[in-house]
Amino acid sequence: MTVQGLSLNLATVRAQFGFAAAVDACLAQGITAIAPWRDQVEAIGLEEAARIVRMHGLKVTGHCRGGMFPAVDKAGLAAAIDDNKRAIDEAAALGADCLVMVVGGLPGASKDIAAARAMVADGLAAVLPHARACRVPLAIEPLHPMYAADRACVNTLDQALDLCDALGAGVGVAIDVYHTWWDPNIRAQIARAGRNAQILAHHICDWLVPTRDLLLDRGMMGDGVIDLKQIRRDIEQAGFRGPQEVEIFSSENWWKRPGEEVIATCIERFRSVC
Amino acid sequence: MTVQGLSLNLATVRAQFGFAAAVDACLAQGITAIAPWRDQVEAIGLEEAARIVRMHGLKVTGHCRGGMFPAVDKAGLAAAIDDNKRAIDEAAALGADCLVMVVGGLPGASKDIAAARAMVADGLAAVLPHARACRVPLAIEPLHPMYAADRACVNTLDQALDLCDALGAGVGVAIDVYHTWWDPNIRAQIARAGRNAQILAHHICDWLVPTRDLLLDRGMMGDGVIDLKQIRRDIEQAGFRGPQEVEIFSSENWWKRPGEEVIATCIERFRSVC
Repeated sequence: MTVQGLSLNLATVRAQFGFAAAVDACLAQGITAIAPWRDQVEAIGLEEAARIVRMHGLKVTGHCRGGMFPAVDKAGLAAAIDDNKRAIDEAAALGADCLVMVVGGLPGASKDIAAARAMVADGLAAVLPHARACRVPLAIEPLHPMYAADRACVNTLDQALDLCDALGAGVGVAIDVYHTWWDPNIRAQIARAGRNAQILAHHICDWLVPTRDLLLDRGMMGDGVIDLKQIRRDIEQAGFRGPQEVEIFSSENWWKRPGEEVIATCIERFRSVC
Repeated sequence: MTVQGLSLNLATVRAQFGFAAAVDACLAQGITAIAPWRDQVEAIGLEEAARIVRMHGLKVTGHCRGGMFPAVDKAGLAAAIDDNKRAIDEAAALGADCLVMVVGGLPGASKDIAAARAMVADGLAAVLPHARACRVPLAIEPLHPMYAADRACVNTLDQALDLCDALGAGVGVAIDVYHTWWDPNIRAQIARAGRNAQILAHHICDWLVPTRDLLLDRGMMGDGVIDLKQIRRDIEQAGFRGPQEVEIFSSENWWKRPGEEVIATCIERFRSVC
């Protein structure tokens, strides 16, 4: 009764479950792939989380998250680099397919997004040797342009792939449909990523109309406007064979329902609309 | 005491003033360029609005707005085309520099954004002969990707300019900093638009952190993160010499203040941060 091809990003049930309970709830419904967040791992302890992963033979499709490089001073950048190295160590301990990189936005009161983007490139370059040594691929996740100021100044797949090409081996992309579905170049860029085997993760959810909150109103697959089947076809045609990872932040809807219902709905929608 | 180089999009004071009162309030503070919305013109009547424009020698930097082409059936598309022709007539009567085109999003329950984009191209082509005959340039306004589903499926300057190039004479772009500031390609695309004299309007406001509403939480210039001076330099270097047009939708802040205060603040910020 294993659900093939589906991973649950544990943020989807973060209001309901801690790490261990989330894993149990996934296994009870046949999901054997997960992607945890750092705070969820920290709460139970890295060793215990890694033990649970090994014990159940779970696939870890990503560890969330590294990044957040732009800083107001060198001390801030150095702290970000240290923190990213710890995140890489955690990802290695969990056997994660990648460390998801949400690169960070404008530091302090800056209005200089070009400078922030340069800091991101420098920060990634600074942690890449450690990632390579630990055999943890870094998955740059382009975030929707509405997060350019406060979360990630890498906002298109095109831009993320340019960064990958500049950085070389050990770096790829996490393609989240929520962030990229609107992009007129998405199909060409997915194909480009495939040619260089740079697709490391495929995140799914849906874009609701209306969207009531910029961060916490993501939709369940099928409840919004994203052509999930088309994007999946493109990503699979580009050579990616990993699971689709459901990642839904939903403070007013899914986070308020029983976790078992959320997981059951993810599975049902994965089968019917993805 | 004329304020050179500044236009007021009348949506900025739509909660406070009708067309005539807005014009009076602008003139009282030295603003002689405006951009009205169709509902504001309709409320006073097109002839009266045009009379006021002529009487005061106002510059009309744009008429808002045409577009909204994608429809669920041919009758819907035909209605949109008719409505756009009326908007063109209005823009001509007002002597507007352009008709701003917010092209429309996904029609009905569609998830096919490529099809919506094709409808937009077809709709623009259908109304362009009338626009040319009336000598009203059509200004395609790329909207922020967060509006791709429900307002405009043209979401980057790059994409808008490709449309312009395909359509030929009589079509250009309205560059609104709110919609485009995050784009990694913005500087190159502004230069591209300049080479073909395709910049028809330059809208300003600011991106607030946090942004509390996807539509109605735009910031006053200087209150957000957009590097307005840099974008202005790029647009002027690209050859655009028209006024900067302030367009702020702000249901919880600026729409709740006295209109005179809003206009005074626009002028002060235009001088200090733009």
